[in-house]
Amino acid sequence: MTNVSVIGTGSWGTALANVLADNGHNCLMWGKTEATINELNEQHTNHKYLPEAQLNKYLKATTDLKQAVLHAEILILAVPTKAIRSVTAQINDVSEAPKIIIHVSKGIEPLTFKRISEMIEEEMNTALIKGVGVLSGPSHAEEVAVKQPTTVAVASKDISVARIAQDLFMNEYFRVYTNDDLIGVEIGGALKNIIALAAGITDGLGYGDNAKAALMTRGLAEITRLGTKMGADPMTFLGLAGIGDLIVTCTSVHSRNWKCGNMLGKGATLDEALAQMGMVVEGVRTTEAAYEISKAFNVEMPITSALYKLLFEGLDVNTGVMELMSREKKNE
Amino acid sequence: MTNVSVIGTGSWGTALANVLADNGHNCLMWGKTEATINELNEQHTNHKYLPEAQLNKYLKATTDLKQAVLHAEILILAVPTKAIRSVTAQINDVSEAPKIIIHVSKGIEPLTFKRISEMIEEEMNTALIKGVGVLSGPSHAEEVAVKQPTTVAVASKDISVARIAQDLFMNEYFRVYTNDDLIGVEIGGALKNIIALAAGITDGLGYGDNAKAALMTRGLAEITRLGTKMGADPMTFLGLAGIGDLIVTCTSVHSRNWKCGNMLGKGATLDEALAQMGMVVEGVRTTEAAYEISKAFNVEMPITSALYKLLFEGLDVNTGVMELMSREKKNE
Repeated sequence: MTNVSVIGTGSWGTALANVLADNGHNCLMWGKTEATINELNEQHTNHKYLPEAQLNKYLKATTDLKQAVLHAEILILAVPTKAIRSVTAQINDVSEAPKIIIHVSKGIEPLTFKRISEMIEEEMNTALIKGVGVLSGPSHAEEVAVKQPTTVAVASKDISVARIAQDLFMNEYFRVYTNDDLIGVEIGGALKNIIALAAGITDGLGYGDNAKAALMTRGLAEITRLGTKMGADPMTFLGLAGIGDLIVTCTSVHSRNWKCGNMLGKGATLDEALAQMGMVVEGVRTTEAAYEISKAFNVEMPITSALYKLLFEGLDVNTGVMELMSREKKNE
Repeated sequence: MTNVSVIGTGSWGTALANVLADNGHNCLMWGKTEATINELNEQHTNHKYLPEAQLNKYLKATTDLKQAVLHAEILILAVPTKAIRSVTAQINDVSEAPKIIIHVSKGIEPLTFKRISEMIEEEMNTALIKGVGVLSGPSHAEEVAVKQPTTVAVASKDISVARIAQDLFMNEYFRVYTNDDLIGVEIGGALKNIIALAAGITDGLGYGDNAKAALMTRGLAEITRLGTKMGADPMTFLGLAGIGDLIVTCTSVHSRNWKCGNMLGKGATLDEALAQMGMVVEGVRTTEAAYEISKAFNVEMPITSALYKLLFEGLDVNTGVMELMSREKKNE
């Protein structure tokens, strides 16, 4: 039994906390919203994010960040990318002993081009970090929370940290593979949201399965091109955090990036689609970051580029798709 | 304008013949069933295989194989894997001049472990072959026949042959990439049917999107392991004929391998499922071939192996899935 705290009470943080409680760990969740914390402690549910799940009754929650941090030997960080720096800085302020931090977020910071683990390392005092890792893969929270079979990858520069996380999470419905390519696993998780937005758009426009599979394949190719330039092992993109996560995000009804894209394909503006989602759609900010990185690194990313123009420069969706289909004859 | 003949009047042969006619080529189809040939010539439809498509009115069809062969500078071979040898032998008997042969079949011969292009080369007189290639990728015939955007790869050991096929097929709704990895493109197309059968089974059993994405990812890994041993370039499996075709076959309602697996997952026997399909389900024979090859080459293929036991040795479906989920802790 390990003392673990999960920072964040969104759908993914809650589902993972439930896995940890199912595994017999002493798991404490932290969140800001008192009503959610009370609901977690008293009803063992999180209706806003996981309406269908009855959670493990030993799962506890608190609004006191210091309590959550001091409780934990291992911290699971499950907050949106844009909150990573501020939450990590707050953790740093109340932390007293070094711990392992496993994050489960999927994004890249615009302007700085930093990955999540890099932001964490910048915001935390080095003496308070025992190791940083990422957990990622094809894993809709909605399914994990009802114990549907799920498989993920855990990566860290230090493989022993990945193994500790593997031991912590693995059970009969949640299968964990270790991986030492931290960069690849973080980039795969972040960039697939761009392709999911694009897949939602083509589905919204009424294109078929052939077009979508082509988009996903060409999307994986551009993710791999950029990831390799950023230091990832290209083989990682063939794995769970690459193609696995890409598949589930582009084809599942649970995917919010796909849903947001789908609304755009049907004619909504970005503001309308985001307002209707009511949850963070990481792919929008990631498209901005990846577009800037692709220019800085001189990497060809036709799908990202078309999506950027569509989201931020008013390109018409039909024109964007046509541009992608009518490129010159190529070798694969 | 090129004189082309398409050998076979199934859904894929018909859809490709329609692309060729749309591109202004003089395209003749060959089939054995007189009623289908008359329907193609008179109604410009093929109701049995493509009930929703109105075909190009310049498309012609014949039951006379010699006429079809002599008509063509380029032959498109679109028959099931188990008919490849006999049809190619008949073509050889009536052929008078060397031509390019592009096949579009997806399978491997059990016992001999031969790919389609190898079977063609064995059955044809070398002097009658100008080049052999394969066209493959995420391309349901039902969508191609109604001009939905589609992207495929064409491969040949001789890249100039692939370029000729690219020029022949490419148009505004059918995008063709060339590739010189004939082995990889043939193996990717064949082996993905195994994973589609397995995905149909897990869907039929009621597993979720996470499990399916994991199955597809681990499936791609074992396809890549076997393909590489058979001489393929591993990067091919990241492309249209690898992951692209795998995605479309595992996630589309049009896929017959998925449909057959789905019936198995819901409790049908193999004989019942095949009887209800009424069309060739290549994945069944391919599972047998791949299982034998994996033993001969000593390649670990847990999904193929579980599926083989389930199809041919009476393994219970639930037990098979549980065995896959409960394997030991692993590095990815």
